Amino acid sequence: MKNHRRSDCPISFALDLFGDKWSLLILRDLIFKDKAYYQDFADSEEGISTNILAERLERLKREGLIQSKPDESNARKIVYSPTDKALDLIPLILEIIDWSAKHDPRTGAPKEFLKMLKKDRIKLARQIRMKFEK
Amino acid sequence: MKNHRRSDCPISFALDLFGDKWSLLILRDLIFKDKAYYQDFADSEEGISTNILAERLERLKREGLIQSKPDESNARKIVYSPTDKALDLIPLILEIIDWSAKHDPRTGAPKEFLKMLKKDRIKLARQIRMKFEK
Repeated sequence: MKNHRRSDCPISFALDLFGDKWSLLILRDLIFKDKAYYQDFADSEEGISTNILAERLERLKREGLIQSKPDESNARKIVYSPTDKALDLIPLILEIIDWSAKHDPRTGAPKEFLKMLKKDRIKLARQIRMKFEK
Repeated sequence: MKNHRRSDCPISFALDLFGDKWSLLILRDLIFKDKAYYQDFADSEEGISTNILAERLERLKREGLIQSKPDESNARKIVYSPTDKALDLIPLILEIIDWSAKHDPRTGAPKEFLKMLKKDRIKLARQIRMKFEK
């Protein structure tokens, strides 16, 4: 997938970066599910193929949404983490969860999470982000 | 593009519906730019191809995000409008605009709009939605 700026529209800008079926799932795994390794993403139940996963990780790195470094316990293993730019997507992802929970009768969104989301989404966004603050 | 439910994850659910480069731009045209006709969408500066546009309109209809009817002034012309399910995406789209305005130095998001967004996004979402209330 090539990067091509289609317009200066902010919605188009975002879709140029993560307007596909997989990028936000990788960011979900990183931000909400504490996953950090290639194999973790590959094991997610949506069943991403390895070539799409490798391409998306490269693209997310190139776009400044994720960073990677050798794992401390095994230098041949790469550990991925979200950048601040990706953590800024937390409120947007919370809106997605809220919308889907409303419109998908079979949603798997946890009830307790939805309750916190309804009650105070700014606080919830802050709590999720705090896990990543140094 | 086939519809295939990959998991019960709310993020995956949303991406199954509009996880592509175009669907949200069509909804943007409908909700934020008062566009309503096939040719209006085709004329948007991102340059959607006619076959993708036709496929996305069909899919958005099938997913209950847009509705269509013959135009009152010319019954051979189809007029499109967003459903309540699509209007429920307004807060999510506002988050996209906010994120892109922060991270895209060349953003075309209007300054006045961003000011309203920063000040009171719930009010702004309500104002946008009000245009569509009967």
